[in-house]
Amino acid sequence: MATVTPYQQLEQEFRRLHAFRGALAVLRWDAAITMPRGSADVRGEQLATLELECHALLGTPRLARLLERAQAGAATLADWQSANLREMRRLRDHAIATPPSLVARIARAVAQAEARWREARERNDFGVLAPQLEEVVRLVRSRAELLAQRFGLDPWDALADEFTPGLLSRDIDAIFTPLSQRLPTLVTEAIERQADPPILPIEGRFPAGRQRALCIEVMKAFGFPFDRGRFDDSDHAFTEGVPGDIRVTTRFSPRDPFQGLLGALHETGQALYDLGLPAAWVDQPVGQDRGMALEESQSLLLEMMVGRSRAFVAWLRPLLEKHFDATGPQLSEENVYRYLNRVARGPNRSEADELTYQTHIVLRYELERRLLSGQLPVRELRDAWNDLSAERLGLVPASDLEGCLQDIHWALGSFGHFPSYGVGAVIAGQLWEAIREHRPTIDAEIQAGQFAGLLGWLRERVHALGARFGVPELVRHATGRPLSAAPFLRYLERKYVSDL
Amino acid sequence: MATVTPYQQLEQEFRRLHAFRGALAVLRWDAAITMPRGSADVRGEQLATLELECHALLGTPRLARLLERAQAGAATLADWQSANLREMRRLRDHAIATPPSLVARIARAVAQAEARWREARERNDFGVLAPQLEEVVRLVRSRAELLAQRFGLDPWDALADEFTPGLLSRDIDAIFTPLSQRLPTLVTEAIERQADPPILPIEGRFPAGRQRALCIEVMKAFGFPFDRGRFDDSDHAFTEGVPGDIRVTTRFSPRDPFQGLLGALHETGQALYDLGLPAAWVDQPVGQDRGMALEESQSLLLEMMVGRSRAFVAWLRPLLEKHFDATGPQLSEENVYRYLNRVARGPNRSEADELTYQTHIVLRYELERRLLSGQLPVRELRDAWNDLSAERLGLVPASDLEGCLQDIHWALGSFGHFPSYGVGAVIAGQLWEAIREHRPTIDAEIQAGQFAGLLGWLRERVHALGARFGVPELVRHATGRPLSAAPFLRYLERKYVSDL
Repeated sequence: MATVTPYQQLEQEFRRLHAFRGALAVLRWDAAITMPRGSADVRGEQLATLELECHALLGTPRLARLLERAQAGAATLADWQSANLREMRRLRDHAIATPPSLVARIARAVAQAEARWREARERNDFGVLAPQLEEVVRLVRSRAELLAQRFGLDPWDALADEFTPGLLSRDIDAIFTPLSQRLPTLVTEAIERQADPPILPIEGRFPAGRQRALCIEVMKAFGFPFDRGRFDDSDHAFTEGVPGDIRVTTRFSPRDPFQGLLGALHETGQALYDLGLPAAWVDQPVGQDRGMALEESQSLLLEMMVGRSRAFVAWLRPLLEKHFDATGPQLSEENVYRYLNRVARGPNRSEADELTYQTHIVLRYELERRLLSGQLPVRELRDAWNDLSAERLGLVPASDLEGCLQDIHWALGSFGHFPSYGVGAVIAGQLWEAIREHRPTIDAEIQAGQFAGLLGWLRERVHALGARFGVPELVRHATGRPLSAAPFLRYLERKYVSDL
Repeated sequence: MATVTPYQQLEQEFRRLHAFRGALAVLRWDAAITMPRGSADVRGEQLATLELECHALLGTPRLARLLERAQAGAATLADWQSANLREMRRLRDHAIATPPSLVARIARAVAQAEARWREARERNDFGVLAPQLEEVVRLVRSRAELLAQRFGLDPWDALADEFTPGLLSRDIDAIFTPLSQRLPTLVTEAIERQADPPILPIEGRFPAGRQRALCIEVMKAFGFPFDRGRFDDSDHAFTEGVPGDIRVTTRFSPRDPFQGLLGALHETGQALYDLGLPAAWVDQPVGQDRGMALEESQSLLLEMMVGRSRAFVAWLRPLLEKHFDATGPQLSEENVYRYLNRVARGPNRSEADELTYQTHIVLRYELERRLLSGQLPVRELRDAWNDLSAERLGLVPASDLEGCLQDIHWALGSFGHFPSYGVGAVIAGQLWEAIREHRPTIDAEIQAGQFAGLLGWLRERVHALGARFGVPELVRHATGRPLSAAPFLRYLERKYVSDL
């Protein structure tokens, strides 16, 4: 009988963890889509029990011993195995860095802050949330300091490592600074150029059933495997599941033919990423996605760069006619393209276009760093938000609802999360430039509804790497160049200035 | 801070187990109803991991110590707590009685036997299954002997305890013997009486959507809570879930307006049982249902006794007209009633009527006891089946497919299971007699579509008892009389002889 090495025993433990995580994914999806409305209490117990089990599994003395012994024998491990061992340690370190008593205090504070956030939104008054948010920030700072000590990082960096592993705030600064410098004028220029001729509004009645049929046709063209995944309607678009059983949802708006489709494309980007993760490592930490920023890059590449390109619109237009019987000048290729890429200054992140969205992210990034360092007291957040909004977006929110109460993230204790949206767009820009370089025929392929070449490139260059490298190294492997905001800015310049 | 007693710690452990079991229920329901077809491999891993976890939880030294210490302090426990402790021990004993090596060998043998059973059915030849079934029987006998030693029971009784806790084979014999004696002549009499005037066939096109609407109307009348449960179409009718999130399915046949409805009623009986279990004990062993026979009794009471009664047909007829626009002599109250209760000898258990069904069960009970005792070698099963079929059912199966290959139970290693179908019918008969005694207005209530009185009686007398008593004691508590086949036989006599 062959000896089972400590490393192999670790793989076995993490295989269990993967099964638990997969079960949790099904339970969450069911809660959002199929669960009876009154069963939330029952489901809450199930989710909490399984999550606690996952957490406990990472904190056992047995796992600690196995990690030590595997590390001692690491010289004999292959590259993927070494990377896997590193990811195992990373997951364990994150899980045990926060003592259970602090985890429990944060959970309680967050539950209250979430309720207060809803109440504050009803009353349109940040003052209702502020005291509870102060408590959340205080506790999250304690947690960040513990993580910082353990990982030898700046506290904010230690939190962000969960979303953008391997990317430090100095890297993020190097990305966001050129964006901040160019975006304000770029927005002005784009708005001027788009004013004439005016973009025709696209309105009408677009039944959900027909939108759904259109989405399915588009998703099939992109290679979404309906025998290994589902597509459902939901209150908001999301992706849930594990590779091998991946479930996309979108939200259909009956007056808008694009919201549901672009939501589906966004989620399909993430789903195809999950489905392309290295099959041999599917149940191991190294076989998982490389965090929020990478997921977002795959979503934005499909939704923004491919899905709002001239080539895609050329392919899409006959499909719109087929599914909606819709024609007219507002549905000309030119107008649809311009409509999908229209730029407007607005106070809301979630409704923002591709250009102003980045400004929203940078604003949050700056504010959350100041909140976490203690430089900005929570009670001054509203004023700071409004000042920065005036400076960067050129507008002051009309109310807290349109300002510092619009996102739930901080009330949930989620700091270090926002930048991954922006970094995701920047990575998408760099990947898109590399794809266009490597596949000069990409526009013709897209125009013909052929996405196999695009998916193949992403599979080989991005998906197949799993969590083998940190974010910056992964981008370098995929594109041959260091992570930089330049390609994304070149893409924006071409799309919103040269091309319009 | 109050001391947590060993008993309270046990409750906490079993609360975790309950959450795991609930998660497993959602995963199984999803696998049958919503999961993408190609994701069975992923789901298999998740189910196996969670099931192993449940099993491991029952076998820890910690649990054994807690059970010992709680037992030592049992004098201070309230009645429900004592019953709960007994059920905890019972679950633990069942879980650890079979050594893991034997569990694994049975699992492997069963997986092969299941495949062979399908192959044997394709070839219509029991010989294909026999060698593998022999191995399963051999291993199940080993398991039965271990359980028998542990529980001080006969081996077959030790297996059956899982399905009909507290009911021994001598009790089952006392139930099945009078059935075996009366049923053959009762079947002959019923068939003679039903021959004239002939029962008109009920055929037509009954779209699934309309059948579904009818089912929902009926289920609502019975008190099924759609905010705490679901109702879906499936390949076969089943109930899955936990109290608080219970999910019923049925199978609609487009040519038959009753199959889907009666399947839904059958499952609604089980669902209402689960929903009526004692709320204070919902996550403890004593708060669970009292096994297969009790579940079956609740299903058959609704499907057979209520759902095929004259009063119910009187209420149902206008609903049939409303949902299917169907009229004509074949849909007269009299014909629908006679149609739903028609008796015919046939080789298949799953298609059998209420009378001949019992004979099918007794036949299997006798054969499986002989198989398990070694008195009947597996290779002689076909002949024994056919002989007993000729003797009891008055027919010899035309082929193995219609004979000893029709059920999968034994190939799956499930012995002691079949009798619970028959015992369930007998319990239903006894409950039905008691209900009619206690609520003389029950027929008028049913005819008016008022089922709250019926449900209230069942809730108070049966559901609210959970697993507090063994099966015979539970029946005595519910009806005031010892478990007996006599009420069920009286019901059959009245329905199929006096009344027709």
